[in-house]
Amino acid sequence: MSSNSRGIGVFDSGVGGLTVVKELRKILPQEKIVYFGDTARVPYGTKSKEAIIRFTMENVLFLLKQNVKLIVIACNTSSSLALPVIKKHFRIPIIGVILPGAKESVYATRNKRIGIIGTRATIASRAYEEEITKLEPRAKIISQSCPLFVPLVEEGWLGGDIVSSVAEQYLKPLKNFRVDTLILGCTHYPLLGKVIQEVMGKGVSLIDSSKQIAMEVKEILEEGSLLQKGKKAGENNLYCYVTDKPKIFKELGEKFLGERIKNIYEVK
Amino acid sequence: MSSNSRGIGVFDSGVGGLTVVKELRKILPQEKIVYFGDTARVPYGTKSKEAIIRFTMENVLFLLKQNVKLIVIACNTSSSLALPVIKKHFRIPIIGVILPGAKESVYATRNKRIGIIGTRATIASRAYEEEITKLEPRAKIISQSCPLFVPLVEEGWLGGDIVSSVAEQYLKPLKNFRVDTLILGCTHYPLLGKVIQEVMGKGVSLIDSSKQIAMEVKEILEEGSLLQKGKKAGENNLYCYVTDKPKIFKELGEKFLGERIKNIYEVK
Repeated sequence: MSSNSRGIGVFDSGVGGLTVVKELRKILPQEKIVYFGDTARVPYGTKSKEAIIRFTMENVLFLLKQNVKLIVIACNTSSSLALPVIKKHFRIPIIGVILPGAKESVYATRNKRIGIIGTRATIASRAYEEEITKLEPRAKIISQSCPLFVPLVEEGWLGGDIVSSVAEQYLKPLKNFRVDTLILGCTHYPLLGKVIQEVMGKGVSLIDSSKQIAMEVKEILEEGSLLQKGKKAGENNLYCYVTDKPKIFKELGEKFLGERIKNIYEVK
Repeated sequence: MSSNSRGIGVFDSGVGGLTVVKELRKILPQEKIVYFGDTARVPYGTKSKEAIIRFTMENVLFLLKQNVKLIVIACNTSSSLALPVIKKHFRIPIIGVILPGAKESVYATRNKRIGIIGTRATIASRAYEEEITKLEPRAKIISQSCPLFVPLVEEGWLGGDIVSSVAEQYLKPLKNFRVDTLILGCTHYPLLGKVIQEVMGKGVSLIDSSKQIAMEVKEILEEGSLLQKGKKAGENNLYCYVTDKPKIFKELGEKFLGERIKNIYEVK
């Protein structure tokens, strides 16, 4: 198999990373995608740095066994805590979600006041702050972990009074700080985008980095002459592996992606 | 080592099972306790039956390696889904939390209308319904999963408007059903006991089965002549193993138990 026909590996702790797959399918429809969702150990955001590094290493090794040519860590928690540690061990390109999100926020802000929301582990890592400060040393940054957002999304509560109250409580310090740009630093959060936008006000740009990530993948493949030529292969070109609940993943995943997931496998 | 000096094994997906340990320490202070908390894979309540059986089997094997004489599955989800399947494979007694909770609810109810709240997996298993119906065929039972209760407790939100609203929403059908007894079918829920009691009203008995479980352990050890004689050994008699975050487990665990956790180990 030539390098070019090898797949792009993407992983997340659950189904959320499919937002990145959706953007990849739009701009690189001819590429094979191998997705890995660690649904038996989800969520990552409440686990320790050591555990997250161990899980990430295992997931990368799984994708390497599938002979991928590039890996996207679509999980914010893994990208924040594990990517800097594990990147140096591997020869293929590994992309996280932090740098693309940081870039987009710096591009979007006018008043240079940027907010970040994410899981407890992502926020504690200060990974977004580091990248933003490198790109724009004058940026004023405020961050806030929102541990109830993931369970709210998983419960299917995407609007209503309770969700608004929780969002008000978490986002109040960011509003008071007068951010004009807010990074949604967790793949679940775009699903609460409407409520978050209402609480923050229309003037605030919400940054969901999946488009930017897909662009970066395309650039890297182009630079390395690794792009797959030929025609779009559709559902025959997408392979999903999960560690638990393949049926629920398929149902939710197809809604997320807007296309059928034909090839889905449970692995231990 | 004689059979009697071997420990009592207890496991839960996290820290919640220490409520059972607390009761065991009160009535069996001379017994050695080996606790296992699977904090790297918590929560179990959102995972599949197959995953829960696999995790439970691994946890039981871990405790057997510690040479325990009896195992308490302090996790409601594992007790509901895995205990009936795995029990037959082992020679030592394995006790779950379902039967003791069911017994206590039947004893407490006057109008024979019993409510059950728990994780999605526990409620879907209908394990409590089965046991209650065996004990009291005329019981009228209603059950409700409350997936946001665990994250609320873990966020430390144990009271206030948001918690009350979430509780109102989940508990409304049980109030309308006029239950006089409510099983708290998850080790996290007693921490929300005050709010749950307010929402349900003073007349409703809340069932937290940890006392009943400790009594059952004592009975089984007595019947099998397996009780440890001698004096209370205090903190030297409690061993905790966790798969992630030993420091946080120790902090939270000591609050739960009201005693020091001297021996704590991280295992993979």
